[in-house]
Amino acid sequence: MKKKDKYNIAIVGATGAVGQEMVKILEERKFPVAELKAFASARSKGKKVSFRGKDVPITELSFEESAFQGIDIVLSSAGGSISKQFAPHAVKAGAVVVDNTSAFRMDANVPLVIPEINGEDIQKHNGIIANPNCSAIIMLMAIAPLHRKNRIKRVICATYQSASGAGAKAMQELEQQTRDVLEGKPVQKKVFPHQIAFNLFSHNSAVTDNGYNEEEVKMIQESHKILHDNSIRMVASCVRVPVFRAHSEAIVLEFERKMTPEEAREILAKAPGIEVVDDRERNYFPMPLEASGKDKVLVGRIRRDLSSDNGLALFVAGDQLRKGAALNAIQIAEALIQ
Amino acid sequence: MKKKDKYNIAIVGATGAVGQEMVKILEERKFPVAELKAFASARSKGKKVSFRGKDVPITELSFEESAFQGIDIVLSSAGGSISKQFAPHAVKAGAVVVDNTSAFRMDANVPLVIPEINGEDIQKHNGIIANPNCSAIIMLMAIAPLHRKNRIKRVICATYQSASGAGAKAMQELEQQTRDVLEGKPVQKKVFPHQIAFNLFSHNSAVTDNGYNEEEVKMIQESHKILHDNSIRMVASCVRVPVFRAHSEAIVLEFERKMTPEEAREILAKAPGIEVVDDRERNYFPMPLEASGKDKVLVGRIRRDLSSDNGLALFVAGDQLRKGAALNAIQIAEALIQ
Repeated sequence: MKKKDKYNIAIVGATGAVGQEMVKILEERKFPVAELKAFASARSKGKKVSFRGKDVPITELSFEESAFQGIDIVLSSAGGSISKQFAPHAVKAGAVVVDNTSAFRMDANVPLVIPEINGEDIQKHNGIIANPNCSAIIMLMAIAPLHRKNRIKRVICATYQSASGAGAKAMQELEQQTRDVLEGKPVQKKVFPHQIAFNLFSHNSAVTDNGYNEEEVKMIQESHKILHDNSIRMVASCVRVPVFRAHSEAIVLEFERKMTPEEAREILAKAPGIEVVDDRERNYFPMPLEASGKDKVLVGRIRRDLSSDNGLALFVAGDQLRKGAALNAIQIAEALIQ
Repeated sequence: MKKKDKYNIAIVGATGAVGQEMVKILEERKFPVAELKAFASARSKGKKVSFRGKDVPITELSFEESAFQGIDIVLSSAGGSISKQFAPHAVKAGAVVVDNTSAFRMDANVPLVIPEINGEDIQKHNGIIANPNCSAIIMLMAIAPLHRKNRIKRVICATYQSASGAGAKAMQELEQQTRDVLEGKPVQKKVFPHQIAFNLFSHNSAVTDNGYNEEEVKMIQESHKILHDNSIRMVASCVRVPVFRAHSEAIVLEFERKMTPEEAREILAKAPGIEVVDDRERNYFPMPLEASGKDKVLVGRIRRDLSSDNGLALFVAGDQLRKGAALNAIQIAEALIQ
């Protein structure tokens, strides 16, 4: 990307949970923004987003090249079908699209990037860079640094995914249903297929022919692409839990050679974007409540896997809206302008 | 046990979450009760439990043989240290103690029993029969029938455990904290070390030297004892979630030989105490909300483990207070009097 003092940024899906977080993070991290354009659907017309103390009016997204004239970077999080429609026009207009949907993630011409892990892939882009699935990001932040030192052969992961992964409306649904349960009222389901209040259920994405849901497929395929290693064998069980905005994951790893918990703890303590929270004495480990609003992914419960010789078990928690989505996208944008 | 028309039953810990469920289940299943005695601590003096339309007054538990004179079966769920104190006296008085604490579970002289799995062990008792840990029961109900057909070599389990496992007060804490969060009030922690409302955390039992908490150790050791097979390699990650009364578990299994999902589904459909809930089309699988109040353990998401050749993955949910505790104890008592 051509070096400038400041860049024109557009956010597509600016009123969504991730879009709002993007605006906040651009401001927090003092991203050199010349002008911010906030796109959303017709439904959000008339709304505003606040950026650096000023109101930015919402512009209805149009699928034309002219809409993106003068934009340097588009940060997009408005759903895969919308990305597929607008992204080619934005690229033609000269923008680079950092897309937080599944639309282009597995496209061979599109880098899929976690800057701390495969930042070098950013430079291979052809106008679009994909932001990975949130559960994949949070898991890979913890396991990629270990994999670099001692190849991981197998990953077994069970997730505890927050409502935020399904958007702002899902978070509201968790709150409303919880109020209704506590007041003895019937619960209304609009976003999730099942009650989320005081309940949990297998991830609400469609189940594919082999019995894995799309979220699990994404975790596996995207991990392979990001680590450039399709030979890692992986199984995931993705589950929604009644938590607002951070995902947790119980992970069991098998390494090529033995990896002690001490060694892993040492590697992770030095890894970028990771905070080791592993206090056995105080029974104090990663929790979604403490990961919420934090940039770092919390990793703990680092212990030998009793079920294999070269295995380790660990538990992670990371903010789904930040490192799982908006922060990672803006880190990609930061790398782009460097 | 000597055959009678009706038996004198004592419940120790009658005012607790499990104790109350025991009273309910004795009534529901028309257990041939001659007289019901309800023991609890001094704190519960003056309280009553309702059984078959009559009030049974709470008797303060005393640690003397005379307290158990005439009792045939003691159903106990008042904490391990209490069981250790009273059980020898009850046995001396001629009662059989079905104990739902960890006090005697790993004692070589005490059978540890899930009636559907190792009911034959009941007859080996010397006055005490132990009721297994709730997470172990719920997992084993699903995996033991598969293990009988094709030996399980390895188990990887991540739990989603409800508040009820920590007792009635923990359930109240989940409710109160949730109300406080929704009202923007500060949250009070009395039972759990961390906030449970809209949060989750590594199980609140003490962490042992190898980094595993006591709940995980119980799951592993008790599974070995119940299946009579110490060679099964196991790893568990036990986690508390903001759910009231049913535990869920994501389980990955490695078998000696290949086991197809179809074969597993067929075995489980015929297994006692199991309900297969595995509707991929409707994304409808076991959920704690639906397992609550049910006797059967729900099993679903039965699919090939993509990370191993002879593996299967599945998801279970079972009522912690019923099959995980009170129901299993009463099933043991039913087997005793047969």
